Amino acid sequence: MSGRASYADWIAVDWGTSNLRVWAMTGRGEVRDQRMSDQGMSKLSQAEFEPVLLNLIEPWLGTAPTPVVCCGMVGSRQGWREAPYAAVPTAPLGGAQDVPCSDGRIKVSLLPGLKQQNAPDVMRGEETQIAGFLATHPKFDGVLCLPGTHTKWVHISAGEVVSFQTLMTGELFDLLGRQSVLRHSVDTEDWDKAAFSEAVSDTLSRPEALAARLFQIRARDLLEGTHAGIARARLSGFLLGVELAATKPYWLGQNIALVGATALTALYASALSVQGLVAQVEDGDTMTLKGLTAAYTELYG
Amino acid sequence: MSGRASYADWIAVDWGTSNLRVWAMTGRGEVRDQRMSDQGMSKLSQAEFEPVLLNLIEPWLGTAPTPVVCCGMVGSRQGWREAPYAAVPTAPLGGAQDVPCSDGRIKVSLLPGLKQQNAPDVMRGEETQIAGFLATHPKFDGVLCLPGTHTKWVHISAGEVVSFQTLMTGELFDLLGRQSVLRHSVDTEDWDKAAFSEAVSDTLSRPEALAARLFQIRARDLLEGTHAGIARARLSGFLLGVELAATKPYWLGQNIALVGATALTALYASALSVQGLVAQVEDGDTMTLKGLTAAYTELYG
Repeated sequence: MSGRASYADWIAVDWGTSNLRVWAMTGRGEVRDQRMSDQGMSKLSQAEFEPVLLNLIEPWLGTAPTPVVCCGMVGSRQGWREAPYAAVPTAPLGGAQDVPCSDGRIKVSLLPGLKQQNAPDVMRGEETQIAGFLATHPKFDGVLCLPGTHTKWVHISAGEVVSFQTLMTGELFDLLGRQSVLRHSVDTEDWDKAAFSEAVSDTLSRPEALAARLFQIRARDLLEGTHAGIARARLSGFLLGVELAATKPYWLGQNIALVGATALTALYASALSVQGLVAQVEDGDTMTLKGLTAAYTELYG
Repeated sequence: MSGRASYADWIAVDWGTSNLRVWAMTGRGEVRDQRMSDQGMSKLSQAEFEPVLLNLIEPWLGTAPTPVVCCGMVGSRQGWREAPYAAVPTAPLGGAQDVPCSDGRIKVSLLPGLKQQNAPDVMRGEETQIAGFLATHPKFDGVLCLPGTHTKWVHISAGEVVSFQTLMTGELFDLLGRQSVLRHSVDTEDWDKAAFSEAVSDTLSRPEALAARLFQIRARDLLEGTHAGIARARLSGFLLGVELAATKPYWLGQNIALVGATALTALYASALSVQGLVAQVEDGDTMTLKGLTAAYTELYG
């Protein structure tokens, strides 16, 4: 007598520092259902990962073991179990790490991140988006930019990650905009596109100017009463201009693709367009799911 | 019949955003007594300034009005009363602003800050240290650097402030070291001097590299387990290297003097020495008091 069949052929999991998202998947990579919670890696002790996961996915399980493929910080040293970084150059999906579970209805694999010895760099989670992008565009040769709190610039060739570089531009923008003296001048959701473009060009050509430009945002507001939408766009533009100056060896003369949330990829596309560059754009969540599907196929297909 | 004589010929006040310091002075600029409190400008409403001040200085007052000369954020728009910025080029001590008080035993003057229209910049408090420095070195021609949360670089010629530039390096170091992902790697009081010097040279010659260097501090720690004293010195050095790159038109080929707290002036002297530059150093508090004395002499001498 066979047991109750699972609602999901397998389960895709994106388990980051702050959030947990799960999808009930078919074997052909279609989404049957999805759920999310705020039980991110940073809030959990090692023993809590399995019950937190089961609490979300239990309705999808049958009696036979269902494969669960996870990416993100869940595989870091502070996570459920460490899935050691794979070293570049390498294909984005290295050897998955199995996690012993006390519940026999799940079979959990954690995808490893990537590391680079020189210059020292690491990623965890983005490698799955890169795998999803390469599953969608298998012949892509060029540079992927994955904007976020810590933006990744990734050189791709022949289906492998050749090298990458992380920039903290997103975190800097948040810290400066919310906690520095500049917060008084940029407290708005407004946005001045012309001020943004001008600021990108300014620090892209003279990156050292950033150090002076930051306080000038505040001083100009005190002396002239700058519209906050102009000040906020300037802050973003000055930081992104320096990022483009730092990553010039990546993007100059290359195919460029942006993978991420809509607002962020639009911002980066706008910064690149100041340089006359056009990037193709893919949605980050879609690429995560395609990457997890590629990993599932590699493990079970 | 004459009233009770004041213990102070006049009272010097440095009233900043976070703290209030007062000195009982003789007419010849000697300190008879001093007190301080944490009742900084940012904690007070307009009506609270006079009682907070009186509470500290009351023991020093006689029956006749005692002059009280104040510098710092007390003269800002959010302070006791606004002492409008004087525009550069100008001598550092512009026209003081009298404040009407309800207590007849004090006669309060607020010293104005300085403003610069192009590039937009402001200072409030540092102009008094500059005046103190010029009272001590009346023939100084060159560049003053006043390190702090917001460091000022000031071009001085013929006793006037010709131009100046503010850099948020100190605030950036605090935000990144305490609140960004780097906080895990730089949590120490240790300090590696060689790592600092190397980092200063690195971003001074390639300021755009800063954008990548920041996350590398974290990545190198994750991959190699960097000593926190090395990581912290690198963070400081990378930021100061960019500051030196941005202010090169100020310091190149100029006399340089540093005015500030001992630890900070030593840090900047160390960064400048990487470039073979030697700066004279003066203590910030001493210069504040000398500047307030110069202002008193101008007003009452």
